Amino acid sequence: MLETVGYVAGLLTTLAFIPQVLQIYKTKSAKDVSLAMFLLFTLGVFMWLAYGIMTNSFPVVAANAVTLLLSLLILFFKFKYNKVA
Amino acid sequence: MLETVGYVAGLLTTLAFIPQVLQIYKTKSAKDVSLAMFLLFTLGVFMWLAYGIMTNSFPVVAANAVTLLLSLLILFFKFKYNKVA
Repeated sequence: MLETVGYVAGLLTTLAFIPQVLQIYKTKSAKDVSLAMFLLFTLGVFMWLAYGIMTNSFPVVAANAVTLLLSLLILFFKFKYNKVA
Repeated sequence: MLETVGYVAGLLTTLAFIPQVLQIYKTKSAKDVSLAMFLLFTLGVFMWLAYGIMTNSFPVVAANAVTLLLSLLILFFKFKYNKVA
C-alpha cells in the first residue's frame, strides 16, 4: 500500500509533463511557460538523478531520467518557439 | 555531501514553480500552460505529501507541501485567466 502510493505519486509527477510537451508541440507556442521555471526544474531533476545514482535507488533514477528528458524537451521548445520569455 | 545533493535537488524542483507563478500573475496569461499537466502534477504532489506523512519523512513533507501550494496557485491562475486550455 505504502509503496503503491509512492509509485503512483512518482508516475503522476513524471507523466504530468507529457501533456505540456504535446500542447507546446501542437500550438507552437510557449510564451506563457516560464523559462526560469524550466531552467531551475531541469537542474533540480538532474540533481535528483545524480542523487538516485549515488544512492543506488532505481525508482529515483527511472522517474528522474524520464522527467529530465521531458523537461529538456520543454526547454528546447521554449527556445525554438519563443526566444524571449 | 550526499544529503546536500538531495536537499539542493529538492529546493530547486520546489522553488522552480515560483517564477511560473510570478510570470502568470504579471502577464495575466496562462494559455500555453497545460491544464492537464498541472492537474496530474498537483494530484501527484498531493500523493507525495501523503507518502511523506505515512513514512514520517520531514523533507518529503516540507518540499511537497510548498510545491502543492505553488501548483494549486498555478491551477487557480489557469482557471482565472484562461477558462479554455
